[in-house]
Amino acid sequence: MRHFLECHRLFVATPPAAALRSIRRAYFSTSASSLKLDGGVSLVQGASRGIGLEFVKQLLEKNDKGHVVATCRNPDGATGLLELKTKFTERLSILQLDLTVETTIEASAKSITERYGFLNLLINASGILSIPNVLQPETTLSKVEKSSLMLAYEINAVGPTLVIKHMWPLLKAGGGSGTERDVAVVASLSARVGSIGDNRLGGWHSYRSSKAALNQLTKTVSVEFGRKKDPVICILLHPGTVDTDLSRPFQRNVPEGKLFTKEFSVQKLLNIINNVKSHDNGKFFAWDGQEIPW
Amino acid sequence: MRHFLECHRLFVATPPAAALRSIRRAYFSTSASSLKLDGGVSLVQGASRGIGLEFVKQLLEKNDKGHVVATCRNPDGATGLLELKTKFTERLSILQLDLTVETTIEASAKSITERYGFLNLLINASGILSIPNVLQPETTLSKVEKSSLMLAYEINAVGPTLVIKHMWPLLKAGGGSGTERDVAVVASLSARVGSIGDNRLGGWHSYRSSKAALNQLTKTVSVEFGRKKDPVICILLHPGTVDTDLSRPFQRNVPEGKLFTKEFSVQKLLNIINNVKSHDNGKFFAWDGQEIPW
Repeated sequence: MRHFLECHRLFVATPPAAALRSIRRAYFSTSASSLKLDGGVSLVQGASRGIGLEFVKQLLEKNDKGHVVATCRNPDGATGLLELKTKFTERLSILQLDLTVETTIEASAKSITERYGFLNLLINASGILSIPNVLQPETTLSKVEKSSLMLAYEINAVGPTLVIKHMWPLLKAGGGSGTERDVAVVASLSARVGSIGDNRLGGWHSYRSSKAALNQLTKTVSVEFGRKKDPVICILLHPGTVDTDLSRPFQRNVPEGKLFTKEFSVQKLLNIINNVKSHDNGKFFAWDGQEIPW
Repeated sequence: MRHFLECHRLFVATPPAAALRSIRRAYFSTSASSLKLDGGVSLVQGASRGIGLEFVKQLLEKNDKGHVVATCRNPDGATGLLELKTKFTERLSILQLDLTVETTIEASAKSITERYGFLNLLINASGILSIPNVLQPETTLSKVEKSSLMLAYEINAVGPTLVIKHMWPLLKAGGGSGTERDVAVVASLSARVGSIGDNRLGGWHSYRSSKAALNQLTKTVSVEFGRKKDPVICILLHPGTVDTDLSRPFQRNVPEGKLFTKEFSVQKLLNIINNVKSHDNGKFFAWDGQEIPW
């Protein structure tokens, strides 16, 4: 709760707790089992910029009843989210979540439990490819460093998995209620370069390895959800090469017409998410809906 | 030495193997560190017990001219290796190598450079699945711990990759010379449960993820070796379920006849290694030679 409150104190327009409680009462008027809120509740993890921020924007704009919880490491500096907050005061919450600190993931789950009690969608949008002077995509084996391999794994594979772990009860509670789907969806942003079968160029060891691991972890989780007949499915998404801070240093060789705007990519990915069926559980889709080999 | 390596690569590009061998013989006979040794030089990393130890044993017994370098974390306690050393005094070297400490990998490479100057085979045989009170294969997402994910990745994926990195110059220098192969081989022990496409049971998150990552890293390295026309290929091997300390706590559900002795499994794996061709670079084989999906 601490994180939730701390973040919300930042915003002048934040409704007081009493008002929030009355909103909640209006929606949850009967029992805990009727966990339904028209438009549903989505969590976008890694929402301060790039594809994550665009997901938050489109989720709020395209569904005038949907609520969105956006998490990022440093809400104070998340200017894009703060701007959206001024427009979507009631329907957007911003929480502090650092993927490398599991207690912040747990605290976010607790805040969401208290405010909504369920989730219908979790988008793991965070990801690192390069950090100046820290992490650089490797061009050759001889430049591979242990610290880079470990860091990329921690952020790109372990963090999203821990988020799924702690949001699982909320997703089970939510299922597809309040949305047009039958199930809650976990959508983790992977990348085609994480595909082992499609790896023809080599290089980018840390990134490729972390995304292959994310694919395996998400697939593993999807098997358990399926076996337990939870109303939750997991998918992996390749957004294409999108014009964001992440891809900017590596856009030189992108063929003409293949560098997407984030608006276009997120529109395509939301289309996949909104139309997903139970039998898609554990699959890896590109932005155009095509399945990608492992 | 640089001049030598350049010549070596040119020779490898020349098709007739017999001509190649005679040119090599002529060249190497005058070289200070003769980069040819009938029977070749193999490095088995993770050799103190289980499948690694059995590889050392069979490599020494089945090839009465082959030299083997065996590495493990604690040579003083490696009773199996010490026994072999009394029998194969000249042809077996034991080096201390801790996968989590990169300087020990570098030091091993330096020792091998000084003694032999080349390698023809590197077997990454180490691997962890469970450590009492530290690492336990997960039966559900709710039991997944960050520390377990990180540890399995460090040992099963990062460590073997760093070994390939530091042994690469030695493997390039060795190629297939002194053996019946055209190329040096890197064989990393993976596991069928590392396959994402074959994942039907779920669970074992840390182990599955680390082995999928090892598969991706080894594939990535294989692409670079292929592009550079290095006389080195990389393969991944699934040994089957073998009766070792690693599998012992998990043997209950193994179907009858599917729990292999380490003698049988290593015999099968050595058969694959000895008959591998350039076009097998980057592939993932089971003990019976069947390819496993990623």
